[in-house]
Parts: sequence; structure tokens; C-alpha cells
Amino acid sequence: MIVKVGLKAQENRSYNIYVKWGIKEQLSVLLKTLADNRKVFCIWDKNVHDIWGSSCLREFESITWEASEKLKRLSSIETLARKLIRKGADRKSLLISVGGGVTGDVVAFLASIFMRGIPVVQIPTTLVAQVDSSIGGKTGVDLPEGKNLIGTFHQPIAVFTDPEFLTTLPDEIFNQGMAEVIKTAWIGDPKLLDILETQHDCIYKKKKDFLEDVVFRCVKVKAQIVMADEKEGNLRRILNFGHTFGHAIEQVSKFAIPHGNAVAVGMRCALLLGQIIGITENKYVERLEKLTELFNLPSTIPRNLDSNDIITAFYSDKKKQGDKLTFVVSSKPGEMSFYSTQELDLVKEVIERAKK
Amino acid sequence: MIVKVGLKAQENRSYNIYVKWGIKEQLSVLLKTLADNRKVFCIWDKNVHDIWGSSCLREFESITWEASEKLKRLSSIETLARKLIRKGADRKSLLISVGGGVTGDVVAFLASIFMRGIPVVQIPTTLVAQVDSSIGGKTGVDLPEGKNLIGTFHQPIAVFTDPEFLTTLPDEIFNQGMAEVIKTAWIGDPKLLDILETQHDCIYKKKKDFLEDVVFRCVKVKAQIVMADEKEGNLRRILNFGHTFGHAIEQVSKFAIPHGNAVAVGMRCALLLGQIIGITENKYVERLEKLTELFNLPSTIPRNLDSNDIITAFYSDKKKQGDKLTFVVSSKPGEMSFYSTQELDLVKEVIERAKK
Repeated sequence: MIVKVGLKAQENRSYNIYVKWGIKEQLSVLLKTLADNRKVFCIWDKNVHDIWGSSCLREFESITWEASEKLKRLSSIETLARKLIRKGADRKSLLISVGGGVTGDVVAFLASIFMRGIPVVQIPTTLVAQVDSSIGGKTGVDLPEGKNLIGTFHQPIAVFTDPEFLTTLPDEIFNQGMAEVIKTAWIGDPKLLDILETQHDCIYKKKKDFLEDVVFRCVKVKAQIVMADEKEGNLRRILNFGHTFGHAIEQVSKFAIPHGNAVAVGMRCALLLGQIIGITENKYVERLEKLTELFNLPSTIPRNLDSNDIITAFYSDKKKQGDKLTFVVSSKPGEMSFYSTQELDLVKEVIERAKK
Repeated sequence: MIVKVGLKAQENRSYNIYVKWGIKEQLSVLLKTLADNRKVFCIWDKNVHDIWGSSCLREFESITWEASEKLKRLSSIETLARKLIRKGADRKSLLISVGGGVTGDVVAFLASIFMRGIPVVQIPTTLVAQVDSSIGGKTGVDLPEGKNLIGTFHQPIAVFTDPEFLTTLPDEIFNQGMAEVIKTAWIGDPKLLDILETQHDCIYKKKKDFLEDVVFRCVKVKAQIVMADEKEGNLRRILNFGHTFGHAIEQVSKFAIPHGNAVAVGMRCALLLGQIIGITENKYVERLEKLTELFNLPSTIPRNLDSNDIITAFYSDKKKQGDKLTFVVSSKPGEMSFYSTQELDLVKEVIERAKK
């Protein structure tokens, strides 16, 4: 006896990303319209709240948390969920994430599982979050076995991106984000690579028009990729450029190497791999090296990280599939492809070269 | 500057529920077809594995857990996720839940957040799970503040329902499930109420054809409601018949009163409410009382539960909305409606009457 449960396709989940210097001052009005009578709860990275909490979003209920990769765990989700309940949140509530990538991932994940899912708005305050993690609906927390192993796809109902937040970002955190900017430019906007090279000084000094342009260009690239491939069928995986090596390096360093640095090194690894297999010319490796240097990002793997440990780390990454390792490679800016291999000697050679 | 992220509607999520005595013996073949090269991991309620683990699903990786409401928490999700990772599960894996309602809720929730979502198959082994919780895609875990406050909608890709599992179910657990059967019959299949009344002996003795018929009828009712209203817009809320009172009673008893008993009492409360507001005739209250008695289910709220505590408990249930309490009421079997009230005196009168 068979009973068929026929379900309709899910409703429209499209949304807008608003990129505007100073938009944070208009959030009260914008969010009230968007909330449509829902109760609004802001979850802030405590550091961001200390700086900006007195000047925006003041009329909404606020919860702060000490965002860190270490606390990106299910136990923090439970703590935050309980705080929401005690403050009266219900399934007619709206969550607002205010902070960087970790806060965005955690709050959006919480929204996706709080009372079986409530809407979330992203207000990214770091460069990484603005150009990358706030877009695309990936949410998640870590397990001791690896990063983002637990999570959902939960699209925000809107993203408000104010590059002015970046003016109070410590330089080293800003530079971390530049690794994702370089990645995004390399993947989908070669013109932006020229801009980064010629106007790095204005960007580095966080001048309004330059910064707004950089963020806007990256958002466009990321949004296009997400639209074409929401759930990482294949195309979206090009966003992993530099990340397969990067994640492994991060992990083996026990996260002493920050994400952006790891991605910068990881992109060089990907180009070195391309060079070895004969698809990437040396001038592109050099171009990347110079670019990362401009923004004080490293390009070599520290010698004390064991190459075999890095290879082992690939296999705890959820991106593995069977025994083959797949890397995003690039023949030149804007031309990306995938390379799968079981030859660990080849991978090891890349790692050894990247140590120099 | 606005970037629009346009996303397509989500793909077909329809699925079949197979109800068949003895289908467990065919699961190896059925699941291999369904798995389509995915690695299969079965998560079993340990008690069920002790009884049936040697006779079905033996060729698949198995994880057992000690299912209980107390362990229906995020910490168990983390433990199970880590076990899956260590056994080599990845995002190309398929989870199978084998057990009752708690196991089904936990495993389906885990599937929905494991590496941002992998498919799940439900193999419900208790009556509650077979007629109710395995159908409809609701998943979840509890918080100390209330039941199912954390969860997702994650439809299974198939449900295999074998009423033979019920033959090894302890009588009191079987009876708990009969509360949901009575609820389902009352809501959507008045003919099943007649069957329960006239053939209760055969059902109680778990005779094959009778049990299969009861389960199949309930599955059809539940599937129809879920199809019409997947995400509890309104219609699906009629499935909460008896549950608003029931959950509150469970909670105030600190879960000493099992779910089925609480629902049986809760349905009587709902009919008593209907009587007071003038929509339910007394003969229907009596009919329900007799039916619950036939299956050894209670119909009164224990006197030691404080009426005010029960009212307070309504407000920690995620179904609340503003200050109004909404109850599913019934003018007669098959005719359900909603009644919203702020008059706590009225609700208290229902509770007082239900204590007799």
C-alpha cells in the first residue's frame, strides 16, 4: 500500500543586497518595513556592539555574543536559542545578524532551526562577511572534526552592507578580507584585479568611493555565482578557489594561521598546481604573489607545517568525495576549472613548492 | 547599489510512504535502489536494534543510540554527527532512521543539518511514529524551555512502514500510539472511529490485517493534510487537536505523564472547551471517553497538577502568538475548527472540568 506525499515547490526565496556607505543609519526604517510586524531580535558580535551599538539599531532587542571560531559550535546555538526564548522570541520573529563571518554563519544557522525556521537579515561588518559569507545562504557551525560540518542553506531575506563598518576594522582583519576580495576578483572580475593593483593605496586607506566600489563588485560576482548554482552543484565550487589547500593549512596550524592568510597561500598553491599540470603560466603565479604582498598577505606555507599532515587534513574536509581530491585551478584570471587527482605525490610537490 | 539574488523554486520533494506488513525483509533491496550509490548509515534506537537488528538492515553501517525524550537535545545531535564523521559519512551519504518518534525527529533533524543537508529515510517502529511523526517532515530537538523548539522541515525521501514492528512493542507504548490514532480518526476519518470501536479487540491483539488497515488509514489522513499545508499555515494545525492542552499537561507533570496519555486527556479538554462555548454536544465527549478507555488511555487531568501552572505552560509553547491562545476544537468527528481566546477563566474552567 503506497501513499504518495506530493509537495509543491518552495516559494520565492529571492532577496536584495543593498551596498551603501552609511546605510546603517537608515536601518531602523528599512528593517521596520521588512519586519512586517514580526518581532525583531538583533544578535551582535560583542566587539561590533561596543563600537556601533550606540549609533544604530538601538530600538530593537539586542543580544551580544563573543564571536570566535572556537565558539562556533552547537553549544553556542543552544545558548543563543535559550536567550531568544527568554526574551520572548517566537516563530513570528525576525533575526538580524550584526557582525562578521562567524556571527553571520551562527545567526543564520540559528534562524534556520529556531522553531523550524524564521527569517534572517544579514548586516555584515567585516570585509570577508561583506564580500563573501553574507551572500549565498550557507550557514553553519563546526565540529571538532572540521569546520562547517553542521549547517543549512538558509537564504537571508535581505542583506544590508555598509562599507563604513570597515573603517573601524583592525588592519589585520581587513587584510584577511582582502584575500577573499582577491579570490573573487580572480574568479569573476579581472577588471577588479587591475583596480586592486593600481588603487591599493586608496583601498588600504579605506576611502569611501574606492571601498564601496570594491565591495559592490565582489557582491555582484558572488551573487551571480549563487544564482546560477545555489547548492554547490558544481559552478559554486569555483568559490573554493584557494580554499581546499587553505582549509587544510588552517586546520594543521590548529587555526593559528587565520583564514584569509590561509586562503592567500591556498590560491598560490592552486596556481602552483596549475603550473605543474601545465595549465597556468608563471606570470599569473607572480601576479598573485605581488597582489597578496600589496595587502600584507603571506604566500608561503610555514615550513613547520608537515606536508603529510596537510594531505591528511584534506580527507576530513566535507568536500572530499570518494578518494579523489578535487581542486579549483585557474589558467588565468576569470578562467577557472576543476582538477581531480589521486596522485598524492603531485599534491605533496605543490605543498613543498609553496613552502618556498 | 542593489544586487538582486534571484533563486529558483526548490526541486520536487515528493515521496512515497510504503505501508506493508513484513516490508522490513525487503529493505535491503529497496534501500539499495533508493540509495543510488550513496553510502547508507542506519541510526537505530538501541531497544529496536536489540530486537530486530539481527534480522534486517544488517548489511548497512549501524549506529545505535539510547532514544529518550531526555536525550532529544542538541548535545545528542553533536554526538551522533561526530560518530557519522568518524565512520566516514559525507555529504553523499544517506541516513536511515529506525525507531520511534524521538529517533525519527532526531535523525531527520541531524540529516537536515549534516553537511548542510543529506537525505533521510524513515523506518518508524512505534505506532505514534508510523501514524504520525514519520510523515510530514517535521524534525526537532528540545530545549529546557520546551519541546521541539529547535528543528527544521526536512522531508524524507521515503518512509517504509512495517506494522509488524508493532508486535514487539510493549502494550503501554502501543496504547500511547492509539491516542494519535484516535486523534487522526477524529480529525479526518470518522469511519476509522467505528472500526476502532467495533474491532478494538483485534487491533489490541495486533492482528495483521486489522493493524495494517488502521496504520494505512492514518497515514492517508496525515499525508493529505501535509500535502495541503506543508508548513503549518493553518490547516496542518488541526493536527494539534488535543496537543495544546496535551503539551501543557506533559510539561507541568515534568513528563511523568507520557505523550499519548496527555494527548488523550488533551482531546477531552478540547471537546469540553467546545461544549462550554456551545459547539460540541455531550454525546461526542462521551464517545471520546469510551474510546480512550477501550485502549486504556486516561481522560482526566490528575488533580495534583495545578491549573495555573498548566495555563502558564501554554505560553512557553512555540504555538503561542501574541497573547491569544488558540485551540483546535471539534463540533463532531471530521469537523474541526479553531478557537482563539484571551479569557483565561474559560480555559481554567476547562481544566477544572477535565480533572473530573
